[in-house]
Amino acid sequence: MRVEVVAVGSELVLGDVVDTNSAWLSRQLAAAGIECRFHAHVDDDAHRIAAALRVALERSDAVVVCGGLGPTADDVTREALAGVMGTALRRDPALLAALEAAFAGRGQPMPPSNARQAEVPGGARPLENPFGTAPGLRCPVGERVVYAVPGVPRECREVFTRAVLPELVSTSGSLDGPSAVGTRTLSTWGISEAEVAERVLRHLGDRPDQGTARPGVEIGFLASEQRGVQVRLRARGVTAAAVSEELDAAEATVRAALGRAVFGSGDETVESVVAGRLSQLALRLALAESLTGGLVAARLVGVPGASRFFAGGVVAYDAAVKRDLLGVPPGPVVSASAAAHMAAGAVRALHADLGLALTGVAGPKTEEGQPVGTVFLGMAGTGLDRPASRALRLPGDRETVRQLAALSALDWLRRHLERLAGSTASPREPAAAGAQSGEGA
Amino acid sequence: MRVEVVAVGSELVLGDVVDTNSAWLSRQLAAAGIECRFHAHVDDDAHRIAAALRVALERSDAVVVCGGLGPTADDVTREALAGVMGTALRRDPALLAALEAAFAGRGQPMPPSNARQAEVPGGARPLENPFGTAPGLRCPVGERVVYAVPGVPRECREVFTRAVLPELVSTSGSLDGPSAVGTRTLSTWGISEAEVAERVLRHLGDRPDQGTARPGVEIGFLASEQRGVQVRLRARGVTAAAVSEELDAAEATVRAALGRAVFGSGDETVESVVAGRLSQLALRLALAESLTGGLVAARLVGVPGASRFFAGGVVAYDAAVKRDLLGVPPGPVVSASAAAHMAAGAVRALHADLGLALTGVAGPKTEEGQPVGTVFLGMAGTGLDRPASRALRLPGDRETVRQLAALSALDWLRRHLERLAGSTASPREPAAAGAQSGEGA
Repeated sequence: MRVEVVAVGSELVLGDVVDTNSAWLSRQLAAAGIECRFHAHVDDDAHRIAAALRVALERSDAVVVCGGLGPTADDVTREALAGVMGTALRRDPALLAALEAAFAGRGQPMPPSNARQAEVPGGARPLENPFGTAPGLRCPVGERVVYAVPGVPRECREVFTRAVLPELVSTSGSLDGPSAVGTRTLSTWGISEAEVAERVLRHLGDRPDQGTARPGVEIGFLASEQRGVQVRLRARGVTAAAVSEELDAAEATVRAALGRAVFGSGDETVESVVAGRLSQLALRLALAESLTGGLVAARLVGVPGASRFFAGGVVAYDAAVKRDLLGVPPGPVVSASAAAHMAAGAVRALHADLGLALTGVAGPKTEEGQPVGTVFLGMAGTGLDRPASRALRLPGDRETVRQLAALSALDWLRRHLERLAGSTASPREPAAAGAQSGEGA
Repeated sequence: MRVEVVAVGSELVLGDVVDTNSAWLSRQLAAAGIECRFHAHVDDDAHRIAAALRVALERSDAVVVCGGLGPTADDVTREALAGVMGTALRRDPALLAALEAAFAGRGQPMPPSNARQAEVPGGARPLENPFGTAPGLRCPVGERVVYAVPGVPRECREVFTRAVLPELVSTSGSLDGPSAVGTRTLSTWGISEAEVAERVLRHLGDRPDQGTARPGVEIGFLASEQRGVQVRLRARGVTAAAVSEELDAAEATVRAALGRAVFGSGDETVESVVAGRLSQLALRLALAESLTGGLVAARLVGVPGASRFFAGGVVAYDAAVKRDLLGVPPGPVVSASAAAHMAAGAVRALHADLGLALTGVAGPKTEEGQPVGTVFLGMAGTGLDRPASRALRLPGDRETVRQLAALSALDWLRRHLERLAGSTASPREPAAAGAQSGEGA
């Protein structure tokens, strides 16, 4: 089965916004074994949107069109769909009532223009959007189907996952016959992308030039400032069980090649892994952040149930705050000693079990004679005889340094918690144990 | 003149990589007054690339195709171009010699596969690439032209800027006559996207259905959880001065329609505006964050020079931290009173001039009997007789509620700082003054 993605918005073809929805939609399609060979972007013009949809419908069995479902006059995907379907828009009373109820629930009158969002091309079926006022639309065109989803990323994902993907998977099964596709993602930190790739391909030993982990398993590498370096495995086979077996074998090889650098799989993030370990060990964490200014705290609080494992934090951007609230002694604040004292101070001030601290120079200028990218991490509390510290030298501009510092601090904590949980004894990874720990103030 | 962009790469349609080249290319085209209404992504297949190029050539005067010019077997843009031109590939002796010289200069033998990069479709002209081994290609197709540029972003930008854009600008001049294009973006918060559009279009009074602000000025609306609701103006005219005049008039109308809801223009964010106001007033801010867990602090610290205006913050996720560090009295912590006390406590604990606080229920579950989305903001310090608070009811899931709470808090602070700076006296916006302030605990 072939599916295409059409993303709508003048901001896309003017270059003001980079489209991330199409890549996300494609990953879901690929993971479900559905072919996607084309994307298109088109501006907010009903005729051109209709032209893009007609081109896509000629080549593919189904089209996902994303965006242009909002309440304003430049949201014209509904009109384009009616044109392609050869029908007119009509107002759906149930949708209108739901819209009015949503505004009433927030205690606001509904602006008249929102009524546009209750319009549906004749023959189309609305798809519920629990996160916004723009419903999706299922629009049959001959034997093919166009699915319209909102352009706001969260709403796009929700409507696609709940109302579109299951139907595509079922149609794909009846069109293509039994075939299974599986993907697996392993996330790592502490080794460069090039070294991750080299180690993995050396361990695999077969056909590294073609990026093939095993016959039938494709392998890819992707680096991100927030998610670390990811190893992506993708396999196709006759049955789900066969695919799963291939992926198990490939994953075992990758884990053997990378040892403790692997912090999670699938959608796990370093903060979700840290959150799980803290909960498992019944420990509560406190933070003291300088250059990251709350980034680490914001990531941890993004994990539901954060009050179980997170006491709180101090954003000690100012040297005086480091002294007054955290008890850091006078002296340079971009230093290993200051980081260790900040961590210990956070444990005291917030009555926590473990403290994690970050101080350093994000840029644009040097501070205390230290170059941009100089970062010190500190840790104190459970499992440490005395506060520990670690020095990093990070590349990039202000935002990159801050993101990499946050990721590195969380990963350092993750390795400490794994040692506390006694999980370092895995027979696959003796070489890596301890090598990245860096304790000692 | 109409130009389209086609980006080539299986990684794009598999969703493993987000395409940023197309947005960059489009910004260059828009800045040069050249229309770009369509983008396409296609996988590494010569037939499908050719199909995408034919669709683009039917609609546009020129096409920029990006990627697929590398040395490996999956780089097939050259083959696709030869197919579209109806010619064969031939090896260019000068290109081959240059490639061999480049490798010799690095003291390496040239891998045999690189010789493919010396192949050129008959009738095409190579475009020099000083940063890599993949030359660009200028490929006439009838009266139209396809320009091929490398997919590596730095090489794409270099080849496009040096060899493609000047020719497009000159062709555009002879096709369209002299023309200039300009854009302007205004960012707002406190009014829904639909109401922003309604107010603006009501003020403009002319042709609201066509999204046209004035003859020659296009208008668009875009909502984002982090940047607020943006109004985008785009004008075209004979001279840059005429375009600028059109945009000035349209901007004045939009500002009159939206009053104090407009917080910035261009790349300004609510935190950069707040940072500017705090610096101007020589005030230092302290934060107390509960549900946002450091998001507001992280945004402010993202502004360079944050130590001038930002003392620091307390991430008081735990009720005990709210009491111990911030002096919040016993009682419900999801309340207007707690928010006001948190703000006052932050001023005291961090020796700041102004305090801003956020407490509430991000979800997934209700807390203290309050539904998800209930948020209280607090403010204390300069310009307030006593700590103030404000209640919000925000839509969406955990992450949306947190992002909207951060934006709303920063915008509330921005309005307070504007009043302090005496900037509320604008004769254009008397109706909005004070209406959104919500002071009073």
